[in-house]
Amino acid sequence: MKRRALTYRDAGVDLSKASESHRIIGKLIEKTFSLRSGKFGEVVGEYGHYANLIDIGSGRALAVHADGVGTKVLIAQLMDKYDTVGIDCVAMNVNDLICMGAEPLAIVDYLAVEKSDPEMIEQIVRGLIKGAKIAGVAILGGETATMPDVIKGAVEGKGFDLAAMCIGVVYQDKIVTGRKIVANDVVVGLQSSGIHSNGLSLARKALLEEAGFSVFDPLPNSKQSVGEALLEPTKIYVKEVLEILEKAQVHGLANITGGAFSKLKRICYGEMGMYLDQLPEPQPIFETIKQVGNISDYEMYQTFNMGVGFVVVTPRESSETVIKICKKANTQAQIIGKIVAKKGIVLEVSKGNLLKM
Amino acid sequence: MKRRALTYRDAGVDLSKASESHRIIGKLIEKTFSLRSGKFGEVVGEYGHYANLIDIGSGRALAVHADGVGTKVLIAQLMDKYDTVGIDCVAMNVNDLICMGAEPLAIVDYLAVEKSDPEMIEQIVRGLIKGAKIAGVAILGGETATMPDVIKGAVEGKGFDLAAMCIGVVYQDKIVTGRKIVANDVVVGLQSSGIHSNGLSLARKALLEEAGFSVFDPLPNSKQSVGEALLEPTKIYVKEVLEILEKAQVHGLANITGGAFSKLKRICYGEMGMYLDQLPEPQPIFETIKQVGNISDYEMYQTFNMGVGFVVVTPRESSETVIKICKKANTQAQIIGKIVAKKGIVLEVSKGNLLKM
Repeated sequence: MKRRALTYRDAGVDLSKASESHRIIGKLIEKTFSLRSGKFGEVVGEYGHYANLIDIGSGRALAVHADGVGTKVLIAQLMDKYDTVGIDCVAMNVNDLICMGAEPLAIVDYLAVEKSDPEMIEQIVRGLIKGAKIAGVAILGGETATMPDVIKGAVEGKGFDLAAMCIGVVYQDKIVTGRKIVANDVVVGLQSSGIHSNGLSLARKALLEEAGFSVFDPLPNSKQSVGEALLEPTKIYVKEVLEILEKAQVHGLANITGGAFSKLKRICYGEMGMYLDQLPEPQPIFETIKQVGNISDYEMYQTFNMGVGFVVVTPRESSETVIKICKKANTQAQIIGKIVAKKGIVLEVSKGNLLKM
Repeated sequence: MKRRALTYRDAGVDLSKASESHRIIGKLIEKTFSLRSGKFGEVVGEYGHYANLIDIGSGRALAVHADGVGTKVLIAQLMDKYDTVGIDCVAMNVNDLICMGAEPLAIVDYLAVEKSDPEMIEQIVRGLIKGAKIAGVAILGGETATMPDVIKGAVEGKGFDLAAMCIGVVYQDKIVTGRKIVANDVVVGLQSSGIHSNGLSLARKALLEEAGFSVFDPLPNSKQSVGEALLEPTKIYVKEVLEILEKAQVHGLANITGGAFSKLKRICYGEMGMYLDQLPEPQPIFETIKQVGNISDYEMYQTFNMGVGFVVVTPRESSETVIKICKKANTQAQIIGKIVAKKGIVLEVSKGNLLKM
C-alpha cells in the first residue's frame, strides 16, 4: 500500500490561511506608518520584507524584526536539552536582519513557560547568550511569562515558547532589498547546519508520528540521533555576511526560512527570477523526512532549506570573494544558480526534474 | 467556615521562583552588554529597569522593551471578543517605555496561535492598531506562528499568546531613572482603567473558579459584566506623560504593572522610600476579587494596580501642572503620598492599616 503523501498542511500549518492573514495584517498595519510621518522614527522600510526600517538620523536606519523558534522547542523538551534553542532564536532574528544589509545590535527575548522552572529557564538563556556571542549582539532584556493555561508542550511541565525581537543598524544608502539584482548575477548558497528552525512541524509529523522514530533512535545515514539532528542549532551568518557587505558587491541577500525557496521571490523585483541548477546534496535528515513522509520535492523545497541556509546574489566577478570570505568563516559556499530575466524561482533538483515556485 | 485565603502563587504564578529566574537571567545577560562596547549600539542602560537603553549617536539613546498581555487572552476567548487585547499589548510596552522618559516610536508584535483563524487574527491586529494610534507608534511588522502543540486556550481552537517589543527614543541627558528623587517630593497617581494586564491569573482564579462567576454575570456594584471589567483595555499614558516631561519637573516615573506597588522600589535609589496615604478608592472589580478570593490587602496591593495605573514623582510645586496636564487628557490624577528618607514602600490603605512592601 502506498503511503499518503504528507504536506505541511497535514502537520497543522496551513500556509494558504497563514498567507491570507499575512496579507490582511500587512494592509492594516501599513496604515500605522503615517503615525510617525514627519517625526523622529519615520518608517522608511516596507511591510513584508525581512525587516522593517525606521529613520534614526545621521543617514542611518534602524532595522527591526521579530521571530520565534517555532516547534523546535518540542524537540528540546523530548531531548531534555534546553541550552541550544536560544541559539536558534538569535539566529532566526539576526539572519533575517542581515538580509537588509543591517548590522544586528541587540535583541530582547520573550519566553512564555508552562511552569516556573528556574533551571530550564537558565539553560534557555544560556543558549540565547551563545547565539548573542556568535552574532555580536547584546541581549538587552526580555520578558518571561508563566502561563500554565496558555502554554503546553511535549513533556508535562516543560512547555515553553521562545521568540525575540532584534534591532540592527544600516546606512540608508546601503540598504539591501534585491532591487539591484540583474540578469546573469550569480546566486551563491551558504550551507545550512541542518533543518534550522523551519518546517519542524512537518518533520516531527513525518519522523516521530508516521515513521514512529523516537528522538533517541539513530538517524539513517548519519552519526546523529533523530533528535540530535532535529535540534542541531541554526547557523548564524552575521560575521561572514557583514564582511561580504564590506568587501564584495551585493545585489541581494536571502535567509532561507519559512516558505524556504519559494520566498526567494521576495528579493526578485520586476521581471527578475532565479534558475537554480547546482543545488548541493541536502543533509541526511531531509532525505529521511522525504522518504518516511512520502513528501514531494516541491513540498520539501518550499518547506525546508535543503542544505542551503542563506543566499547571496552577486555579480559573477564578486562570487569568488564571497565564497572565500565564507570559507574563512568555516561556512561552505558554492554557486547554486543564476538570475534570469524571467519571473519565478525554478529549481532543477535532479537531471530534468524542474520545480517551479 | 472561613475560606482559605488565595494568593498569586495559588493561581500558578510563583513570584519568588519568577524572581529567582529573573536574578539568574539578569546576571547572565549583562555579560552580553560588552559585546557592543566601543561599537555603535553601546548599552547605556541597565538590566531590570523599565527598559534598557543603547546609544544611537547625536546624544540620543534608544529605549527597548518587550512585554506581553499575559492571561488576559483567556478572557478575550471566553468573551469571544478579540479587538481590545491588542490595546493592552501596546499599553504594556509603551507605558513601561515612557518610564525612562522615552518617546515610543514603533512596535513589532509576536502572536502565537493554536490554529490559523484569519478572522480572529484580524481582530487582534485591529486592537494593536487602536493601541498604536493612541500611543502614536508605528507597527513595523510582526510574527504570527501557528503552533497547535505549543499554544492552548480557554476555548478550543481559539488559544493564542500575544506579546510585542517596543522601541523609543530619549536624549541621554533626559533619561528618567528615579535617581533625582528627594525627600518631600510628591507622588502623583494617575487613574487606571481597571485591572489592566496584571494579576489576571489571580483574578480568574478568584472570580471564575472560587466564586463560580461566568464572564457574562454582572459584576457587583458595577454596570459591567465580570468579563467586560476584566477585558477593559489598559490605559495608555503616552500623551500625558510626554507633555508632563516637557512642561513639569519629573524626578521619577513608574508604571504600576507586574508586582504592582512593591515594584515602586525600582525608582527609589539610596535611602529614598514612599509613604502613600492618599490612595484612591479602587474600582469595584478589585473589591469583588478581594472578597470572593478572601485575599489580603498586602497580596492585593502587590498584585493589582488598585486604581492607580501610573505614578509621577515630582517636586510639590510641579504637582499642580502634572495634575492639570492629566485632566486635559481625560486622566484623573491626584497626589497619593510623598517621598520619605526611609527605604521601603509604605501604604496606608485605610486608617491605621499600614502595608510595608
